[in-house]
Parts: sequence; C-alpha cells; structure tokens
Amino acid sequence: MAPAKVPPTTVQRLPVYLRCLVQASAMHMPVVNSVQIAEMAGTNAAQVRKDLSYLGEFGTRGVGYDVDSLITHLSKQLGLTESRRVAIIGFGRLGSALQSYPGFEERHMRVVAVLDADPAKIGTSVGGVTIESVEDLAAVVTRERVEIAILTVPGPAAQEIADHLVAAGVRAIMNFAPVRLRVPEGVEVRQADLAGELQVLSFHLNPRTAAV
Amino acid sequence: MAPAKVPPTTVQRLPVYLRCLVQASAMHMPVVNSVQIAEMAGTNAAQVRKDLSYLGEFGTRGVGYDVDSLITHLSKQLGLTESRRVAIIGFGRLGSALQSYPGFEERHMRVVAVLDADPAKIGTSVGGVTIESVEDLAAVVTRERVEIAILTVPGPAAQEIADHLVAAGVRAIMNFAPVRLRVPEGVEVRQADLAGELQVLSFHLNPRTAAV
Repeated sequence: MAPAKVPPTTVQRLPVYLRCLVQASAMHMPVVNSVQIAEMAGTNAAQVRKDLSYLGEFGTRGVGYDVDSLITHLSKQLGLTESRRVAIIGFGRLGSALQSYPGFEERHMRVVAVLDADPAKIGTSVGGVTIESVEDLAAVVTRERVEIAILTVPGPAAQEIADHLVAAGVRAIMNFAPVRLRVPEGVEVRQADLAGELQVLSFHLNPRTAAV
Repeated sequence: MAPAKVPPTTVQRLPVYLRCLVQASAMHMPVVNSVQIAEMAGTNAAQVRKDLSYLGEFGTRGVGYDVDSLITHLSKQLGLTESRRVAIIGFGRLGSALQSYPGFEERHMRVVAVLDADPAKIGTSVGGVTIESVEDLAAVVTRERVEIAILTVPGPAAQEIADHLVAAGVRAIMNFAPVRLRVPEGVEVRQADLAGELQVLSFHLNPRTAAV
C-alpha cells in the first residue's frame, strides 16, 4: 500500500530513479538492487531504499527490484501512464530549444500548444504545432486541456502570464523567467534557475568556501 | 569568521538569496530581515538565518541585514567578484539559447568559448565568440582559461567530452545531456534535467500522490 503522502525531497529523486531504471532496462538488466540504483543515481543505497519504501513494498530483500515493474510503478506514481499536456509560453531561443527537447516525448510530456506575443511568429507552424497569440491564452489552455505550462518569457511579463495561466486552471508551471512567481495555494511552480546553477558550481570552485 | 565548510543544501540556496537581495537593492531597500528574505526566496526565516549563519555573523538582531554588504559578501562566497569563464560545448538550439541567456552576464558568468562538432558551424561568429571545433577542446580550454563547461551535446557524446574537459583541467560541469556523467573526485557536476523537472510537476498533478 503506497502511503498518500510522499516527502517533497523524495519526489524530486523519483524521476532520477526512473531514468536510471530506464537505462538499466535498456542494458537488459531484469533486476537491480538498491546499491546499483544508488550508483547510477549518484546517491546511497539506504536513501534509495527509504525513498522507494514510500511507494510501497515491492522489492525483494537480498534480490532487488524487478526493473520493469518498478518502471511501471514509478511511472504511475509520477502520473506518466498517459502523456501530460504541456504548453510553452514564449517562443524565443529557449522556448524553441525546449519545444524540440528530445527528453520530453520519451517521458510522456507532450507539447500541445506554443504561444508568443510576436505577430511575426503567431500563425507559423513549429513541430506540428501552430504558434498562437499569448492574448488567446485562456482559450488555448481550455481547448488543449493544458496541464503544465513552461514559461520562457522575459522577466517583467512572467507574473502577469502566470496569473492568467492560474485563472485558466493550470496548476503546474515550470518557470524559466528570472523572477520568483507568486501563485495561490494548490499551484506548483518549479523555478529553473540556470544562472543559479552556474553560481553553485562557481561556489564549488572557490577553495575558501567549497561545500562539504 | 566564516567556517570553511558550508553544507551543500545551503550552497544551493545561496544564489536564491543573492537574487532576492539584488531585487531588494533594485527596490531601494537598504536593510532586509530574514522574514523578508524568506518571503522572497520562498522559504522560512529560520532557514534563512541558519543558512546565512554559516557565512559568518553580519546581520544585526532585531534590525536585519544590510542589503549591499550582504550582496557583496554572498557574491564573494559564491566566487562572483570576478567573472567566471564559461565554455558552451554543443551549439544546437539549447546551446544557442544559453549563449544569449541574459541571466548569465548579470551574474558574472562570461561565455568565453563555444564549441561544436558541425563543420558548418565551426568558424562562424556568435555574440562576439567564434565557434571552434570540439576536437580542439583541450587547446581552447587552456587558452581561454575555462572554469565552467556547459554541456549541451547529444547524450551519447557527453561522457567522452566530459572526460576531455576533466583532462584539460575543468572542475565544474553543467550537464544538459540526458545522461549521468562519471567524473573523478574534485570535479563538480550539476545535472540539468528538464524533463525530470516536468515529471516532478506531473507527480504534483496526480491527486493520489501529491507531495506533503
């Protein structure tokens, strides 16, 4: 029996485990143990066992986890048995890169709508999707049943668009704009912070302040 | 006195605090307290105080932190008083988006080299940098004193290039390829996992498995 509540830090690691398992499956490994998963995931075996225990008891002590059934189980837990419907708002270089990002399709993320504010882009077709006006946001979200929005708009525009997304019923936003969005309870925002990631690396390069 | 060791989870939050402080400075706030930083950073005040305490004692109880001196201090801790020299390996759509990513310059990340394997791209100029051959990686890293490498190459090429980067002396890699890199002790890798981020959002959308 999977408990209803999984800690957020565990949730963050589940996609990593899923990716490792897909790799194991591609290498024709029928069974993996927690040490192997930890090795691939860059964590430790105790952590793996603890994280997976939140999802229920389906490993066999001394043997390991059946790769295919764990993939199925994790996919279900991650809501990946059917494709999630994704909209990209802002079709600049980053939006364009994300729209063709190969990792999305294979992980059941389907870009069903692309929106932009530039009249020169609106109406053009990209990867089977026609770019629509950001002014039609609410209508597009409803028509395409958008579940996840990826925001790749300039910083100053991000909050207003996020407000419109939330009003249109979107409950999950991946934000690449360099501003922190304010959203109501029940809406989940992931903040992509590419410069911040580099700053973490930079911190590591500083011998006086290297992390433990 | 700042202790020599800062926990990795704290390190990850420092760029967020720095961004909040830069925002506060832009709003002409001379002083902020931990509650305000927490509000902007999406965390809690106790966490902020604890994180900042690792860097030394420079807040004033009941008053708060001097914004400008905390920016200076955090920048120094993050090694940002001088620009970090960044190379982008792989100039596809994502590499191109990152090369012009506005957040980098303002956070002292300077793209000094761009490399690709495509003869059609090599020799062309992008944003003041001439694209060079990935075969000349070691020479470029040395000449440009590259400190941080951003990998936006196809998955199967990533490990080999990472090996060359490490051999050339690079100790910090931001990896956008959908594979987990193996690097020796002392080299730091940040794994960008855009599809994984969406999967975390997806998990949140699943009512049976919503995170606590």
